Amino acid sequence: MSTQDTTNGPADLSQSRFLKACRGEQTDATPVWLMRQAGRYMAEYRELRKKNTILELIKDPALATEVTMQPIQAFDLDAAIIFADILPPLEGMGLQLEFQKGEGPVIHNPVRTEADVRALRQPDPEEFLHFTLDAIRLTRKELDPRGVPLIGFSGAPFTLASYAVEGGSSRNRVLVKSMMMNRPDLWDIMMTKLAKLAGDYLVAQAKAGAQVLQLFDSWVGELSPYEYENFVLPYSKLALDIAATAGVPVIHFGTNTSGMLPLIQKAGGDVIGVDWRINLDEAWEILGHSTPVQGNLDPVTLFAEWPALEKRAKDVLDRAAGRPGHIFNLGHGIVIETPVDNVRKLVDYIHEYSRTLRG
Amino acid sequence: MSTQDTTNGPADLSQSRFLKACRGEQTDATPVWLMRQAGRYMAEYRELRKKNTILELIKDPALATEVTMQPIQAFDLDAAIIFADILPPLEGMGLQLEFQKGEGPVIHNPVRTEADVRALRQPDPEEFLHFTLDAIRLTRKELDPRGVPLIGFSGAPFTLASYAVEGGSSRNRVLVKSMMMNRPDLWDIMMTKLAKLAGDYLVAQAKAGAQVLQLFDSWVGELSPYEYENFVLPYSKLALDIAATAGVPVIHFGTNTSGMLPLIQKAGGDVIGVDWRINLDEAWEILGHSTPVQGNLDPVTLFAEWPALEKRAKDVLDRAAGRPGHIFNLGHGIVIETPVDNVRKLVDYIHEYSRTLRG
Repeated sequence: MSTQDTTNGPADLSQSRFLKACRGEQTDATPVWLMRQAGRYMAEYRELRKKNTILELIKDPALATEVTMQPIQAFDLDAAIIFADILPPLEGMGLQLEFQKGEGPVIHNPVRTEADVRALRQPDPEEFLHFTLDAIRLTRKELDPRGVPLIGFSGAPFTLASYAVEGGSSRNRVLVKSMMMNRPDLWDIMMTKLAKLAGDYLVAQAKAGAQVLQLFDSWVGELSPYEYENFVLPYSKLALDIAATAGVPVIHFGTNTSGMLPLIQKAGGDVIGVDWRINLDEAWEILGHSTPVQGNLDPVTLFAEWPALEKRAKDVLDRAAGRPGHIFNLGHGIVIETPVDNVRKLVDYIHEYSRTLRG
Repeated sequence: MSTQDTTNGPADLSQSRFLKACRGEQTDATPVWLMRQAGRYMAEYRELRKKNTILELIKDPALATEVTMQPIQAFDLDAAIIFADILPPLEGMGLQLEFQKGEGPVIHNPVRTEADVRALRQPDPEEFLHFTLDAIRLTRKELDPRGVPLIGFSGAPFTLASYAVEGGSSRNRVLVKSMMMNRPDLWDIMMTKLAKLAGDYLVAQAKAGAQVLQLFDSWVGELSPYEYENFVLPYSKLALDIAATAGVPVIHFGTNTSGMLPLIQKAGGDVIGVDWRINLDEAWEILGHSTPVQGNLDPVTLFAEWPALEKRAKDVLDRAAGRPGHIFNLGHGIVIETPVDNVRKLVDYIHEYSRTLRG
């Protein structure tokens, strides 16, 4: 990364590897970042967590900035992603969120009835998510001299709805799917609010300084293509249409989407993120090579000893074949116990080997 | 179903709807059965469970027969599946299995070290799984007069290995994938034993009277196509090759396989089972229409009110387009709280509507 002159305001990183790849332009090497790259696998993060809950880290802009920068200081990553979570936006709608130890996130007043749906507020992210917007502004000051762009993100309407209705994680998602199937009228009200919230939040993050945005639909792969097309796609599209007004590249990511990639693409996004359950070359062929792609190493591969990990990383890069518009990433977030040394080696290897694949 | 004459030995059900569809032959209506059709959503089953643990029901041939017959008595299903579980075979290898309340299955001595792998026995299913083989013999006597064929089944090597190594269910399957990536030598020993066990067990069930066999690879969709092809497919193929010697149709089922259906097919099986994460017509086109398919309604759809459920069942049948070789099923097992009345309506609707799709 070249050092930028920031004496005259924010840096222009439009020619950075990551932004060029988001636009489908050729780069000297494949850019790489890793979902959940700031997190518990790093000792620096665990140290901060001793004194702070997750929500405390997220809601203190200085601490969120510190966490965001930890992997950037440790590894040669091509992008930072603001340390935040997909769930705090639900607090602005009136839901009571708690991260319980060992239980994961819990919503104490889940959305189950018509009254619950109608009571959901349509919040203004500029007001109630100011902590993340402030963290973005602070982080940009740290990142600009390094020439590293910053990603802002939001949960997608279906993934947010799953948490809001189920009240936490859920094996079969019977409650959220039941509302979708049996009360399409309520579903429409809730999903429209969630789509506007996600879209507005992404735009606000771009205004605060995020140079790329990502919509996370982590749970969308629990749906059939039929349900996705009829009950989710219109709302993801609304969120992505709003986000597109920010004028920065938008990545649209989901897991378990191998059987419905054309629908994910139809919903929108400049870059499509794919998980590891499909070969990258096959996914890219389905999407068409003019659409940039992000992915797609199984996060658990990072538990392999280096020769096995190298082989699998090489396989992903070989399938991308040095084509412009590939952003290397995992197929989902880094797993908690991941060996840090493997992360370092992987990031360096992606740059080194991908250079050799350029014409 | 026509009543069969069983005075001269076991009934020949080769012309039943289900067996014809397994061979890709045209039938008057689409045959239907439902994964986990005997289970907790039925009051009759819950009644038996009050006095018996799951393992007690499985290991008592008379009780296993009674449970197997419960959905056959309640619904117009085209096949029964023996009441059993994929995990008891692991006991024959030396693993200590327990179904803990609310926790699901637990293996008290999971396979973690080289010594653990080498200590795994290669058991003879005829000996240590005699209870299920006896249950198959008993159940056939109940089913033959009704003209309903019986399915025997086994877990596939990777799904069995996941339980054996993780010791229970697991979010990321770090331990089993780590052994696969880092100790291919041990992996080969364990997977070869599991493949032989699965294959032998399927053959034993056919000999005892099962007219169709199913290999369940419920967790295979956590793998990348790369891992599946190199580290799992050869062992699934070994199990399926052994099963094929029984001379009855074999169904090969996995979930989350949308991105690697050709590899699942390459491993073997006369019928390929697909989950709901891909449209049935697209899956069938990938597999080729000469391969019979089984699937693929989202089990949670059974929580819909009838008009919505009917619409989705119709969509699956319309995508099958009345082609020979479609077996209607859910994309995975019935969910515990499923409304019984919807099961009845669904089974009847599949028969009624699919008749109208025949040329």
